[in-house]
Amino acid sequence: MSTEKQNPRVGIVMGSDSDWPVMQAAADALDEFGISYEVGVVSAHRMPQDMIDYGRTAHERGLSVIIAGAGGAAHLPGMLASVTPLPVIGVPVPLKYLDGMDSLLSIVQMPAGVPVATVSIGGARNAGLLAVRTLAAGTDAEAGRLRSALLDFSEELRRVAQAKGQALAAARAGQGA
Amino acid sequence: MSTEKQNPRVGIVMGSDSDWPVMQAAADALDEFGISYEVGVVSAHRMPQDMIDYGRTAHERGLSVIIAGAGGAAHLPGMLASVTPLPVIGVPVPLKYLDGMDSLLSIVQMPAGVPVATVSIGGARNAGLLAVRTLAAGTDAEAGRLRSALLDFSEELRRVAQAKGQALAAARAGQGA
Amino acid sequence: MSTEKQNPRVGIVMGSDSDWPVMQAAADALDEFGISYEVGVVSAHRMPQDMIDYGRTAHERGLSVIIAGAGGAAHLPGMLASVTPLPVIGVPVPLKYLDGMDSLLSIVQMPAGVPVATVSIGGARNAGLLAVRTLAAGTDAEAGRLRSALLDFSEELRRVAQAKGQALAAARAGQGA
Amino acid sequence: MSTEKQNPRVGIVMGSDSDWPVMQAAADALDEFGISYEVGVVSAHRMPQDMIDYGRTAHERGLSVIIAGAGGAAHLPGMLASVTPLPVIGVPVPLKYLDGMDSLLSIVQMPAGVPVATVSIGGARNAGLLAVRTLAAGTDAEAGRLRSALLDFSEELRRVAQAKGQALAAARAGQGA
Amino acid sequence: MSTEKQNPRVGIVMGSDSDWPVMQAAADALDEFGISYEVGVVSAHRMPQDMIDYGRTAHERGLSVIIAGAGGAAHLPGMLASVTPLPVIGVPVPLKYLDGMDSLLSIVQMPAGVPVATVSIGGARNAGLLAVRTLAAGTDAEAGRLRSALLDFSEELRRVAQAKGQALAAARAGQGA
Amino acid sequence: MSTEKQNPRVGIVMGSDSDWPVMQAAADALDEFGISYEVGVVSAHRMPQDMIDYGRTAHERGLSVIIAGAGGAAHLPGMLASVTPLPVIGVPVPLKYLDGMDSLLSIVQMPAGVPVATVSIGGARNAGLLAVRTLAAGTDAEAGRLRSALLDFSEELRRVAQAKGQALAAARAGQGA
Amino acid sequence: MSTEKQNPRVGIVMGSDSDWPVMQAAADALDEFGISYEVGVVSAHRMPQDMIDYGRTAHERGLSVIIAGAGGAAHLPGMLASVTPLPVIGVPVPLKYLDGMDSLLSIVQMPAGVPVATVSIGGARNAGLLAVRTLAAGTDAEAGRLRSALLDFSEELRRVAQAKGQALAAARAGQGA
Amino acid sequence: MSTEKQNPRVGIVMGSDSDWPVMQAAADALDEFGISYEVGVVSAHRMPQDMIDYGRTAHERGLSVIIAGAGGAAHLPGMLASVTPLPVIGVPVPLKYLDGMDSLLSIVQMPAGVPVATVSIGGARNAGLLAVRTLAAGTDAEAGRLRSALLDFSEELRRVAQAKGQALAAARAGQGA
Repeated sequence: MSTEKQNPRVGIVMGSDSDWPVMQAAADALDEFGISYEVGVVSAHRMPQDMIDYGRTAHERGLSVIIAGAGGAAHLPGMLASVTPLPVIGVPVPLKYLDGMDSLLSIVQMPAGVPVATVSIGGARNAGLLAVRTLAAGTDAEAGRLRSALLDFSEELRRVAQAKGQALAAARAGQGA
Repeated sequence: MSTEKQNPRVGIVMGSDSDWPVMQAAADALDEFGISYEVGVVSAHRMPQDMIDYGRTAHERGLSVIIAGAGGAAHLPGMLASVTPLPVIGVPVPLKYLDGMDSLLSIVQMPAGVPVATVSIGGARNAGLLAVRTLAAGTDAEAGRLRSALLDFSEELRRVAQAKGQALAAARAGQGA
Repeated sequence: MSTEKQNPRVGIVMGSDSDWPVMQAAADALDEFGISYEVGVVSAHRMPQDMIDYGRTAHERGLSVIIAGAGGAAHLPGMLASVTPLPVIGVPVPLKYLDGMDSLLSIVQMPAGVPVATVSIGGARNAGLLAVRTLAAGTDAEAGRLRSALLDFSEELRRVAQAKGQALAAARAGQGA
Repeated sequence: MSTEKQNPRVGIVMGSDSDWPVMQAAADALDEFGISYEVGVVSAHRMPQDMIDYGRTAHERGLSVIIAGAGGAAHLPGMLASVTPLPVIGVPVPLKYLDGMDSLLSIVQMPAGVPVATVSIGGARNAGLLAVRTLAAGTDAEAGRLRSALLDFSEELRRVAQAKGQALAAARAGQGA
Repeated sequence: MSTEKQNPRVGIVMGSDSDWPVMQAAADALDEFGISYEVGVVSAHRMPQDMIDYGRTAHERGLSVIIAGAGGAAHLPGMLASVTPLPVIGVPVPLKYLDGMDSLLSIVQMPAGVPVATVSIGGARNAGLLAVRTLAAGTDAEAGRLRSALLDFSEELRRVAQAKGQALAAARAGQGA
Repeated sequence: MSTEKQNPRVGIVMGSDSDWPVMQAAADALDEFGISYEVGVVSAHRMPQDMIDYGRTAHERGLSVIIAGAGGAAHLPGMLASVTPLPVIGVPVPLKYLDGMDSLLSIVQMPAGVPVATVSIGGARNAGLLAVRTLAAGTDAEAGRLRSALLDFSEELRRVAQAKGQALAAARAGQGA
Repeated sequence: MSTEKQNPRVGIVMGSDSDWPVMQAAADALDEFGISYEVGVVSAHRMPQDMIDYGRTAHERGLSVIIAGAGGAAHLPGMLASVTPLPVIGVPVPLKYLDGMDSLLSIVQMPAGVPVATVSIGGARNAGLLAVRTLAAGTDAEAGRLRSALLDFSEELRRVAQAKGQALAAARAGQGA
Repeated sequence: MSTEKQNPRVGIVMGSDSDWPVMQAAADALDEFGISYEVGVVSAHRMPQDMIDYGRTAHERGLSVIIAGAGGAAHLPGMLASVTPLPVIGVPVPLKYLDGMDSLLSIVQMPAGVPVATVSIGGARNAGLLAVRTLAAGTDAEAGRLRSALLDFSEELRRVAQAKGQALAAARAGQGA
């Protein structure tokens, strides 16, 4: 059901392989931070028992975080959250109509008792980064390494934004000259 | 988990007993047509395995239709539909915010392969009537009885609407006199 | 007005032939399950009396379920439901603007007394599958055959989803190697 | 089915007598302009054939305009427009949920060929005034009388608005003194 | 400011010539019914005094109906309605974002006292047809001619819809053969 | 038409005196900063020519900013902006339905060429403060005074927020003791 | 600025003390799991520098998770996320209009690089529970304790839901007797 | 961080250089009126401290108005408004999903105390024009020049609209000939 890496800390699952073009950005973010993960198709509607089993055993298999993407009547993140004590991050995948508003509401509006950490519509990269932050919130050495890497990452975001601003300013100065 | 009537044909389930004031209208509609049913709390998020077991065995226990009400990130109707071959009727229960739009989209926007027959926001009475129509679509004697009762029911709807129109007209004529 | 097959069990109607590219998926689903059906253009707004006559006689002509697709101010499913005791399944057809939200609300928000079983925006395939489930809810031999076929269908959905997950995992393992 | 006044020019119809508190404002507007009208309950969903008959014969019975109010999946205005050559004015009646947005879209988003003159959510008074304008668009003496009355009405709107502005100014001047 | 035809009965105005591709359908509908009209750009925001003057004198110049199209914060139809006793038909022109929902609400949600007869988003053809119905609501010979033409038009709509249905049925029968 | 203060710098206008309970907060904000203003009812729909005259002469009468509140199809702010070179601040007044979303879109979605400075739904206090900022953007002594007052105002906002935080903390500490 | 508990692991902050009635449920959830936390008012708009300082130093002061609630143009969660490597959980607080839809979109639609873990509108209890899950995702003894407590918590949710279902069934059986 | 022109009066900033294609229209409008400005990338989320510093010093550096564009959870305009006494004009930049509705609500729904002058979705040209109006609201010679230029600009808008109307009329007259 999933790509096995050694000792994955994060599970990235989605309702259909058609969600992969959106969800890949979550995997990329984890790669950037050197976090092991597994990838799988776990459909709430097409393989409900497998989905429940996946969620139930996730923490026993060593996962610390689950990232789940789904679209439309998006039930996967919330259903996984109902069977695991792990934090579940939900990615609203936009489908052909409604621009992902149905996906967002189906994921974020969970009843009291079963939270899903929802990110933006199509925001799989942020789902990956939120998983990094979650692992960095721990107390072990790996958490310390990640916290430090996140601070570097923030600094890099700032540096790139500044560079882009300077390039824009330079381009306009060139035009005006 | 549920009120047992003898040989229930319809299962009415909801995510929480707080949905009952909305869902009761489904039971009332079935009562009007003399259809046996069971009522239960089957929460997708709080008792996911029980929910799946409920759905999986529903047709084996003699149910012909399931009516499921849920609100917010409303996963119950769709999850039940994924584990039963029976028609599942979903009732979007409106919660405190968003007027049930989240409930509606979470129920109606199911992916291809797993349909939910969705009725209006808060429309439990229509869910009951849709169950009646579903049973009336069969080929047995009971279906014949129900089809006939539905035709009577339609005629009664018309009669009442006409009477209301006449009362309104009479009231206004009285005012004008 | 419609394609006649022998003893059609399901009527698939739409407000305009321009809805056919969306609605065809309903016919395909019925074909997969070996269910006979008829197809027709029955416009609520352009041929209202024909529409009413179609609905009124549907059960007399042997239909068990009606599938109706319409877009915008989509009145066809609800109007048919008002003149037939059969279950009516409504497909919100998305038009050029609003992504089908107008179609959805015009179909699903029916008043108490006249239910329409609404599926997702553009969800004609699910309308077909819901018709199958409705026929499978009966008590005759055909219903038994369909119930069994639906269980097989679910199993196949699961099998395909798993295969896609494995293919995705394999593709990624290949990349990583 | 309706309150008969002598030679009514306008028909005010609604899907249910529960719409009357909203729709009464249309009648009041017609009264202010001395226009005769009839009032009735004509439900698209509960008395579809009567509704079609009402629409079909409306112009033969001397009506010039139909005002139709409905809520939710509001099919009455559009269905009447499909069977009459008269202008049909639609009033979106707000129901318990969605603030009338469903009613508005169900009425205004009519397909090409069958227009409905839609007014604001709950805007029955404007429906009445639009009927007056429609009658005033004719070429006969009555139209001339109404056109003149509409110009007076506009002037009166202006006078009242100005008076309110002066009262507000005076009240504030008094506070400040 | 406008195309002058002899004795135009209808004025078609829009906020910008970029609205013409949408609004042309209104002119086409009037042409089909042999109704004279004028076309002009009358911007509420770019030529407010001209707009008011246009509205104020419209009935004096012999117009019976105004059709006004506008997009976004669409003020033209409502502003014209505030200065003319004629019925004003508003066409919500969809712009680049929001699918015309802003245009629709800006036009339809008029305050009590100043109605705008709103048609669907982009529904200029229906605006033209509503103008025809308005002229047909009169008591003169022209109104009689138009009423008769509208009945023919309805019949033709029905005929075309039926033909399309038969073509669809035939195409499918051919496939199945 | 308006409360005259000596040399008003800001005009606060609204479509109806029923908007005053919302709009009063704009006046209060101006009072806090010692800015003179006038208040009036200027309805785009009920007194369109007065409205245009008000806007056209505003800068000649010494006004520097106009604050305009309106609800529903809210045309007042945009129409005023089309006839004055002054900055116009629009306040979307929420009406009975739609929570002010119609008011917001009718005000903010202005076409290129005619801007309206839109604040939040019901946000009249912020409209007043934005007028203060606008006056403070000038180069004269009054502008300097206002800029300084705005910096004090910001500091006070911070102080109050901190005090509330401390009170909340103290209350909770007291509970916990 | 905040209630100090010894060695708080979680910071609960909000833009205004008026958010406390909503946010209290987050504190209650943490209390149930024996997790120490601090509470404070940290307004993005009224004390922006304090807000940034709060976020920047949060991980240095020993916090592992931040829960931030805000309404309307809700900037607090996203701004805190931009200055801390900790996971930030955002609670969309519903204000007077729009049912919290503005709050939700302002919090969840963060740009790539800066994630906020968003919960449902008004879902502070789930924010608290998500913080518990985040702490439980660690590798230390406390994490183990929390994971175990979360499993118990889930079991309790199930037990209560079942009991409610039985009570509902019993009540109905009593009625039927 | 920004393009320096001599003594810029307006700062145009945006969260990302990808916003420039939208924001350029603001610069163009300022160029048309001969107003000096600076352009920069100032990201609320990627360089929060720089953003605050930019806002805090803006009025000290001689800026009179800030134009800020941002998309999605658009925090830049509101955060700048919280640290400057200058008027801040917010441009909702539409992103890939939701047509800019998230951007609009995140910018316009500011809490009382901190206003943002919001323009239409993608309405950067109007943001530039609003900045011109703001500068024209002053009492100095430059303000007088700008006020006069704005009156000319309005007249030109009118002239162009009229010319387009005439061209449209001529084109149609040619067709009809």
